[in-house]
Amino acid sequence: MTVELSRRRLLASFGAVAVGASAATVLVERTASASDAVPSDVVPFRGAHQAGITTPAQDRLHFVAFDVITDDRDELEQLLRRWTLAAERMTRGEGAGPVGAVDGLPDAPPDDTGEALGLSPARLTLTFGVGPSLFVDADGRDRFGLASRRPEALADLPGFAGDRLEDAWSGGDLCVQACADDPQVAVHAVRNLVRMGMGVVRVRWAQLGFGRTSSTSDSQATPRNLFGFKDGTSNLRAEETAELDTHLWAQESDGAAWMAGGSYLVARKIRMTIETWDRTSLKAQEEIVGRDKREGAPLSGGTEMTAPVLGELPPTSHVRLAHPQSNNGVRMLRRGFSYVDGADSLGRLDAGLFFLAFQRDPRTAFVAVQRRLAASDALNEYLVHVGSALFAVPPGPGEGDFWGSTLFA
Amino acid sequence: MTVELSRRRLLASFGAVAVGASAATVLVERTASASDAVPSDVVPFRGAHQAGITTPAQDRLHFVAFDVITDDRDELEQLLRRWTLAAERMTRGEGAGPVGAVDGLPDAPPDDTGEALGLSPARLTLTFGVGPSLFVDADGRDRFGLASRRPEALADLPGFAGDRLEDAWSGGDLCVQACADDPQVAVHAVRNLVRMGMGVVRVRWAQLGFGRTSSTSDSQATPRNLFGFKDGTSNLRAEETAELDTHLWAQESDGAAWMAGGSYLVARKIRMTIETWDRTSLKAQEEIVGRDKREGAPLSGGTEMTAPVLGELPPTSHVRLAHPQSNNGVRMLRRGFSYVDGADSLGRLDAGLFFLAFQRDPRTAFVAVQRRLAASDALNEYLVHVGSALFAVPPGPGEGDFWGSTLFA
Repeated sequence: MTVELSRRRLLASFGAVAVGASAATVLVERTASASDAVPSDVVPFRGAHQAGITTPAQDRLHFVAFDVITDDRDELEQLLRRWTLAAERMTRGEGAGPVGAVDGLPDAPPDDTGEALGLSPARLTLTFGVGPSLFVDADGRDRFGLASRRPEALADLPGFAGDRLEDAWSGGDLCVQACADDPQVAVHAVRNLVRMGMGVVRVRWAQLGFGRTSSTSDSQATPRNLFGFKDGTSNLRAEETAELDTHLWAQESDGAAWMAGGSYLVARKIRMTIETWDRTSLKAQEEIVGRDKREGAPLSGGTEMTAPVLGELPPTSHVRLAHPQSNNGVRMLRRGFSYVDGADSLGRLDAGLFFLAFQRDPRTAFVAVQRRLAASDALNEYLVHVGSALFAVPPGPGEGDFWGSTLFA
Repeated sequence: MTVELSRRRLLASFGAVAVGASAATVLVERTASASDAVPSDVVPFRGAHQAGITTPAQDRLHFVAFDVITDDRDELEQLLRRWTLAAERMTRGEGAGPVGAVDGLPDAPPDDTGEALGLSPARLTLTFGVGPSLFVDADGRDRFGLASRRPEALADLPGFAGDRLEDAWSGGDLCVQACADDPQVAVHAVRNLVRMGMGVVRVRWAQLGFGRTSSTSDSQATPRNLFGFKDGTSNLRAEETAELDTHLWAQESDGAAWMAGGSYLVARKIRMTIETWDRTSLKAQEEIVGRDKREGAPLSGGTEMTAPVLGELPPTSHVRLAHPQSNNGVRMLRRGFSYVDGADSLGRLDAGLFFLAFQRDPRTAFVAVQRRLAASDALNEYLVHVGSALFAVPPGPGEGDFWGSTLFA
């Protein structure tokens, strides 16, 4: 079916180019930039799970973490209801509000800011999460009567060796992950949610990512990260349906029934010291990663998708330490993006990986793996973790539900 | 011819999708993300003018300004020679160096960092410029024996009313503008030039732009800026060949013969206070801009491309004040990009326009127009200029030439 739809789209696009109309050429561009074998440029918003997790990873990211600045639970809940409707509209390629940027009341601010007018939905997904601080604040206060509903899996992340975390890139009561194949579509969505949240939430931090570093579907080619290596080869993928309930989706039996069908998101801003990396020999780079640079094959032999023979890889190589076999079989669905935030005060490119990983329980997944990596990974010489956040990502909203409605019910 | 090539490409792409090979689907994605009616994904590097000026504006930007940290003119010249060869290679879709990221000597750092392996050239252009400080530094010192060759048109920009310029986003001895339809391709190019420049230059500042805000060719649809309005409707375009010598390209008769065929680039980082803008009524927004939001038609009537009747527009509207008729017929080729750099310490989105404009003489073009805008433009309430830089962009390198060879000759 995927191929069927792609055929129709490409044939339609070809017709559009032939007539040379500018609106039509925009269609070509936007349609085809929906990457790899994508059946449509609209990703359904409602369902058992939120979109933007097993959705084939889009090309661009705008991630935002919010502080809730109201003490009024009703006010927060009303915002979540309004956000949900706006998010659903925007994922369909519509404006954030019913009146719009260009059909609005002339004496009122537009319901939508307008910069995505005429753009395709670009496979926009908006994925919502709640942080530990929404349940209990730093003073131990039950802010919204939710403290008893905090899942055990949403335990604060411990510190790891080598962490150099900054408040400016850490924490958050709420988050929204906007992914799309067009950055303007992702930026537009975040900007409109921020606008709607005025007085109820405030942006705590935000991060743009320009290129995906993982595949979350067998249909996608493996991208390269800023080390120049293929990344995410052994990532958990949408097609591994039997594995998803084990490793990705929270289950009712896990304790917090409102999270059943949801997942837990760990976000880490990982600065890469690429200038140092770039002075490292090819051989050293490959031994540090544990894969060859061209194919991405494990150094134990084979091709990219060949399972590594861990005992034949350097003991501190990243692949060996991060591999499920080294971590009690634990797997995560990684969905990170490369970022460049300009240059730092020393003239180094301020660049790295904005790591995003979804999992059923961070205590046995991210925390366990990162403990091992932080202790021994040869890549650590070229990495600094500067930001960290953890969110519970509720199940997908059904018809009439809103983001987090199972939590607030 | 454009249509011919697009046809072949799309048909090839369609075939690729049908067989479902992952390498082939990447081709589809990359080919078609080359926007609008593009004849090829390689833009020729050498020619009478540098690429990246009249080239139909690509979708993504990575701009970098450098300080030169050597006092040795030969060392600088050698870097420019090496940069030129690397830039030419990268615009063809090759690695930065002849040995490459994956075929390198195992005990040497790779000649290329690798993250663009397998990606298309994505219409990459690399455009090089030199700033006033390369000729004479802040102490009045003739750093490289070039002081006498400084063009009069490269006069330091004056201060403008409302400027809140920060050193962190201003100035530079050299610049490189990398534009491509794939951000990873632009980032890769800048990163490799930075790597090659170690010890000779240091990054002073860098800026990513996620979306073009101007069209530089009749073949392109007009994009929208972060105010939600179509921008650059009356921009100087590649097809206006008779106008380019008048407004864009420096002429031998202008005084600095080495710049003939070059142009002058003004870069301004313009923060938009979008939260304030978003609370402004639709009517006010349209009166401030001087166009309607839906079509982009001037408020004096017609459609997007209708010439405005300036006397019928609000006196302080942006279009009226910025229009060539209000500025002695002056025109520039604008090539700016929207940016979002996350959020600021107050939780506002740190977003705006990275304004880039090429012109024959900034004294009569940007400076004259900006004086008028800074004094009266109704948009000023929603704009803050936080960065400023000026560069002489030499003519395009012919065979065997290097970036700036006419200056160093």
